[in-house]
Amino acid sequence: MVPPDQWFDLARLSVEVAATGAFALAGVLEGTRKRMDPVGICAVGFLAAFGGGTLRDLLLDRRPFFWVQHVEMLWGVLALCLLAMVVMRARHLALTERAILWPDAIGLGLFTASGVQLALDAGLPDLVVVLMGVVTGVFGGVLRDIVCNEIPAVFRDQRPYAVCAFAGGWACLWLDRAGWPEWAVMLITMTLTAGIRMLAVRQGWRLPGARL
Amino acid sequence: MVPPDQWFDLARLSVEVAATGAFALAGVLEGTRKRMDPVGICAVGFLAAFGGGTLRDLLLDRRPFFWVQHVEMLWGVLALCLLAMVVMRARHLALTERAILWPDAIGLGLFTASGVQLALDAGLPDLVVVLMGVVTGVFGGVLRDIVCNEIPAVFRDQRPYAVCAFAGGWACLWLDRAGWPEWAVMLITMTLTAGIRMLAVRQGWRLPGARL
Amino acid sequence: MVPPDQWFDLARLSVEVAATGAFALAGVLEGTRKRMDPVGICAVGFLAAFGGGTLRDLLLDRRPFFWVQHVEMLWGVLALCLLAMVVMRARHLALTERAILWPDAIGLGLFTASGVQLALDAGLPDLVVVLMGVVTGVFGGVLRDIVCNEIPAVFRDQRPYAVCAFAGGWACLWLDRAGWPEWAVMLITMTLTAGIRMLAVRQGWRLPGARL
Repeated sequence: MVPPDQWFDLARLSVEVAATGAFALAGVLEGTRKRMDPVGICAVGFLAAFGGGTLRDLLLDRRPFFWVQHVEMLWGVLALCLLAMVVMRARHLALTERAILWPDAIGLGLFTASGVQLALDAGLPDLVVVLMGVVTGVFGGVLRDIVCNEIPAVFRDQRPYAVCAFAGGWACLWLDRAGWPEWAVMLITMTLTAGIRMLAVRQGWRLPGARL
Repeated sequence: MVPPDQWFDLARLSVEVAATGAFALAGVLEGTRKRMDPVGICAVGFLAAFGGGTLRDLLLDRRPFFWVQHVEMLWGVLALCLLAMVVMRARHLALTERAILWPDAIGLGLFTASGVQLALDAGLPDLVVVLMGVVTGVFGGVLRDIVCNEIPAVFRDQRPYAVCAFAGGWACLWLDRAGWPEWAVMLITMTLTAGIRMLAVRQGWRLPGARL
Repeated sequence: MVPPDQWFDLARLSVEVAATGAFALAGVLEGTRKRMDPVGICAVGFLAAFGGGTLRDLLLDRRPFFWVQHVEMLWGVLALCLLAMVVMRARHLALTERAILWPDAIGLGLFTASGVQLALDAGLPDLVVVLMGVVTGVFGGVLRDIVCNEIPAVFRDQRPYAVCAFAGGWACLWLDRAGWPEWAVMLITMTLTAGIRMLAVRQGWRLPGARL
């Protein structure tokens, strides 16, 4: 039987669009909270949506960047940021973090998996491969928070996030090494990462806090 | 008739020196305000003057960096930062933002045009080309503000700045596509961007603020 | 007589391990102070330890990164960060800046020398070569402080640090140009930089402060 490649590509694209949108909206939310102007809100939306993948491509020395190959993603995020601003002004619609919890978790899984697979293609050592996955999934949010003059939430809020990407990254690495087909590796990594993340949120799991 | 290439090169160089100096002084000003020491003030001056172009070269994967090809610019900015500090200490000379408003606006136009033309040479899609122009013009200031632990002014002060670069960038792109000679494209882009910027400042135009 | 290459390599490795550890601990210390969670503390530790060298490699367009070639350094820093957190929680052991003053100063010297030599290999102009040394030595701490939402200490605390690297960098450059063997250049640069730094700390030397 042929692996369902066409379906997989379409499904992956849909997930990627949803995830990128969720990341961008998280950026819009944070920029709005910090009372930025429209330029700032769009910039933070772009950083949140594309920052992790761009840093990954920069570290892996990959060109063209993924947003050069898929320039329609840039247009989409620009439109989304402007739309979100207009809607928030007009309707007093509360865009809350809860609303983007699921797409954000799935995006974390997808971006982690993509980072791991590109790092594997580059023939890097195991730990580096997994960290590339984590960077891809997490650093959009880190850059977003730095520009908003906050300590990155992922480094401080004690809720497992990067840890989920780290776990999912190792799973992705091992499955790929075990010879599983790409679509299965991607699907399992995404489900696993997003699953742990949502479980952690629901159960209120906390990482231990720092003590001086 | 031969296009006035020699004159154009000389004029461009003069503008570039003035603009880089204005950006560096904006950095010195901000570093001083944050009570940095001389090392910090020079570092912020360098970031403000060279940050945007360096990020552009990094994203376009261009080497050598423009400040490696023109290392005298590095020496010049170093001297300028030290000089500005000495003068400010000795004379209580107020180095104000108003004093660098014009060279800063012209620098914005020049750097935007240079970013657009290098991105065009790299054969990138339209939106990416324009965004490279904006990044070149704007991100020196963004990095300056991040290091100074501020939300970047360009993202928050509601005064059109990145928007002028965005408009100028599209003009630059279209003129280049229409086959205009490089010096004319450069001149028009610079005049247009700086003109909109100064008009916006004079008229007190404001971008709409964010509303939660 | 054969230069003591084997001994030199071993000695250099030991110093590098100690210095990287000191930089990582400075990161752990700062992350703890800002009440980060374990993910954040490790991230800051990594940034402090590897940030300067990574930025240098990115600017010089060198691949693979040094932490890809020596992936055991990544594991070591990860283990060190976790260990430091556990010890600090369990023993209330005060990890103070004083304790890492010496290894930090030596690390500054070593990283400066390594940055200068790699930049020399790349055939860059003198000032760029020295600045690459300074960036390698100093920017780990800068990135650490930015992520911790502080103005970088090296830009504000008036204690000579980057200035020592700058002086050591010029010494390194001139010695290399004068044809001294690599191990001697490295040793002298390191001793000189660390020596000036420790002298400055002991004597309480201050850079002049900014004045508005």
